[in-house]
Amino acid sequence: MDLALAEARAAAARGEVPVGAVVTDGEGRVLASAGNRVEELHDACAHAELLALRAAAAARGEPRLPDCTLHVTLEPCPLCAAAAALFRVKRLCFGAYDPKGGGVEHGPRLFAAPGALHRPEVVGGIRESEAAALLRAFFAPLR
Amino acid sequence: MDLALAEARAAAARGEVPVGAVVTDGEGRVLASAGNRVEELHDACAHAELLALRAAAAARGEPRLPDCTLHVTLEPCPLCAAAAALFRVKRLCFGAYDPKGGGVEHGPRLFAAPGALHRPEVVGGIRESEAAALLRAFFAPLR
Repeated sequence: MDLALAEARAAAARGEVPVGAVVTDGEGRVLASAGNRVEELHDACAHAELLALRAAAAARGEPRLPDCTLHVTLEPCPLCAAAAALFRVKRLCFGAYDPKGGGVEHGPRLFAAPGALHRPEVVGGIRESEAAALLRAFFAPLR
Repeated sequence: MDLALAEARAAAARGEVPVGAVVTDGEGRVLASAGNRVEELHDACAHAELLALRAAAAARGEPRLPDCTLHVTLEPCPLCAAAAALFRVKRLCFGAYDPKGGGVEHGPRLFAAPGALHRPEVVGGIRESEAAALLRAFFAPLR
């Protein structure tokens, strides 16, 4: 989560919403890390999680990551929760909860839905206050 | 939808699930088209819709597509429905309904959910039988 928080801080420095993500393999080795790049890439889907998952899969040359953990500083939105399911990640560890935009513990609760494609283990609230403080500091001057 | 069906057929020829997508602008001009490339790109998220949306936004140099229509041969899954919302597309036109994997008229029904980020106009069932026949023909020998 240290590296994910560093990615979030780097995203903020680029003017992006400060969310960072890391994918580790079954031995805890880092396969990929990323921060948000929506504005830079002109891609509304360039969320940290999606970029990290795609990079990890590309590095491995496999479209699925069944032994991997996705670490992210914020509860994934429905897009990124669906991506975690499509990549079949084993575990999702996230920082701050997102009652408004989250898709795991809030909103559509994609992994809990009947007929869900895949249900990774989920651990929320890891270093929540640090992750949330980054987001608050980013949005405060915009409000 | 002609072009989307052609992209779906081309995807099948590459050994990918035959789904095709096209993004058109407010004047009906094609900005981008794509078929599934999950296996080729080793990317579980390389769905036709996401690829077409990202290409359209990249071509324009803008992360959102508020005047655009996403045409796709199959009801989008939760990932692609969430992507259509994030890209703020005006309209979604799809072919076959997907009771098992769809996220628009089935499953989490992302656009209908309370607090949905964005609700494009939705028209389903366009040339449904052609789109569904492509999928049946692809999956039949695998079953």
